[in-house]
Amino acid sequence: MTPAAVGADLGGTKLLVLAVDAAGTVLAETKVARPEGPEATVDAPVDIAGGWVGGRPDLPVGIGVAGLVDRDGVLRTGPNLPGFDGFPFAARLAAATGGPVAVDNDATAAAMGEQRIGAARGADDAVFVALGTGIGGAAVVGGALRRGANGFAGEFGHMVVDPDGPVCPCGARGCWERFASGSGLEWLAAQHPSGRWADVQGEEVAAAAAAGDPDALEVVGQLGGWVALGLANLVAAYDPEVVVIGGGLVEMGDLLLGPVRGRLAEITFGARSRPAVPVLAAQLGERAGALGAALLAQEAPTSAA
Amino acid sequence: MTPAAVGADLGGTKLLVLAVDAAGTVLAETKVARPEGPEATVDAPVDIAGGWVGGRPDLPVGIGVAGLVDRDGVLRTGPNLPGFDGFPFAARLAAATGGPVAVDNDATAAAMGEQRIGAARGADDAVFVALGTGIGGAAVVGGALRRGANGFAGEFGHMVVDPDGPVCPCGARGCWERFASGSGLEWLAAQHPSGRWADVQGEEVAAAAAAGDPDALEVVGQLGGWVALGLANLVAAYDPEVVVIGGGLVEMGDLLLGPVRGRLAEITFGARSRPAVPVLAAQLGERAGALGAALLAQEAPTSAA
Repeated sequence: MTPAAVGADLGGTKLLVLAVDAAGTVLAETKVARPEGPEATVDAPVDIAGGWVGGRPDLPVGIGVAGLVDRDGVLRTGPNLPGFDGFPFAARLAAATGGPVAVDNDATAAAMGEQRIGAARGADDAVFVALGTGIGGAAVVGGALRRGANGFAGEFGHMVVDPDGPVCPCGARGCWERFASGSGLEWLAAQHPSGRWADVQGEEVAAAAAAGDPDALEVVGQLGGWVALGLANLVAAYDPEVVVIGGGLVEMGDLLLGPVRGRLAEITFGARSRPAVPVLAAQLGERAGALGAALLAQEAPTSAA
Repeated sequence: MTPAAVGADLGGTKLLVLAVDAAGTVLAETKVARPEGPEATVDAPVDIAGGWVGGRPDLPVGIGVAGLVDRDGVLRTGPNLPGFDGFPFAARLAAATGGPVAVDNDATAAAMGEQRIGAARGADDAVFVALGTGIGGAAVVGGALRRGANGFAGEFGHMVVDPDGPVCPCGARGCWERFASGSGLEWLAAQHPSGRWADVQGEEVAAAAAAGDPDALEVVGQLGGWVALGLANLVAAYDPEVVVIGGGLVEMGDLLLGPVRGRLAEITFGARSRPAVPVLAAQLGERAGALGAALLAQEAPTSAA
């Protein structure tokens, strides 16, 4: 096997590693529990890649990491990766391989994948939102993924949409991800007047909605309204051609995206003066981050370590 | 006089026209009441420029217009310019002059001015917010002003920050500009428990605050908190190097910007992982839009009309 690049997606509990050819086709894929400690999480994809290529890998290797990753590939803070803060992922990865490396935020990597080979293919202006336990995001502006001054752009989940809302672990009240994520689904279900879901997993509510349960459909409709509210804010700011939704919640499909699209069309600022903004499900699924990381590494300059 | 370009800023009540040399220095300036009707608002700056150059102007002419201006220079909707919706400003301007033209949103034009020759000079990533009766905005992302798919990017004033807030003329509830603008100042003053300002002009509250009135200072502090809340949302999204505040409210100076900076430092997402984002007053004052429009025209291709 002679892959063109290797990409990895490092989440709080899992590490997904894959090898792609020049067209972005997946040649090999491995999913493991997240190794203990930051060094081991860099060594694991390098070792896996080494097994695929037969030796120390000198091909591009990229990693998407759940957290604030600065422009030097240092994880500044990652709430789901305790003990990893300040770890210089890119430098460590460059030292362990012989080729170009890229380390970026996981949602930024996923947006790269969706823009190049997924749902936002070819869009010059696109907003990507990953609805998981929280909300990750990234924006393609003027033809390119933009990272901001420190590499922290796209933290849409922490835009406040209700200053009287529930407290977020970040310290603020009423961040968008308190309402419009998997955690938000559970919070909304817990507020339901039926009292059925005081302490429920989001999956259970989603399954009930899929089975036609009216209470669950009501909660999912509320979730869709909150997703749409934040998307309308992003449309007002970015004026994108397309919005792409990834993350675990997108598995609900049109059960969720239907209410999102309907509500967004109602509340988009200047809706009568612009075409409706398509809201598309991500196409790359759980591979988006690793595929995007591989693409980012292919465009990275040769290792600066 | 041989100016390099002419720029105009068309607001709801006034039209400001100025001529600049190649370095952006203002050579001549005229401010008139807004002419009646869209044709006259294009003819006025052309006639004024003609007077300056002695004949039909063939130098670059730009106009910043208060409203949603599409990428063809058509005003799609302008709440403060009744009867102007759909007017093809750029085509009409190109027909009336012999040189390159640019027609853009007024806040976009002002941001261009501030980025090139004002407070955000040299910034690759900057957010510009004009706090006037409402809120206008624009973003410099990756080194350039970005307009979005339709030219409507930067409508930060209509990002919802409180779904239970007061109704906005746009139809939504709790848009940022309901709280963090001149209108917001009046609304906040009207809520003050003293009952002193049931129906007040913002200027009166600002003057009282400047004179040290504790109630007025309390209201201005609340205003600063709302400004900071929306800026924190924009910092989470764009990760800018700098935020520039223009518009009439910036005349309050540090009386307003002090509380804004203090609160923003408290609520910025990831504040411990990034440098504080400077919040600077716009430097070009009421000329920013016209200066930016002149700069945009200088970079425009020769008239396509």
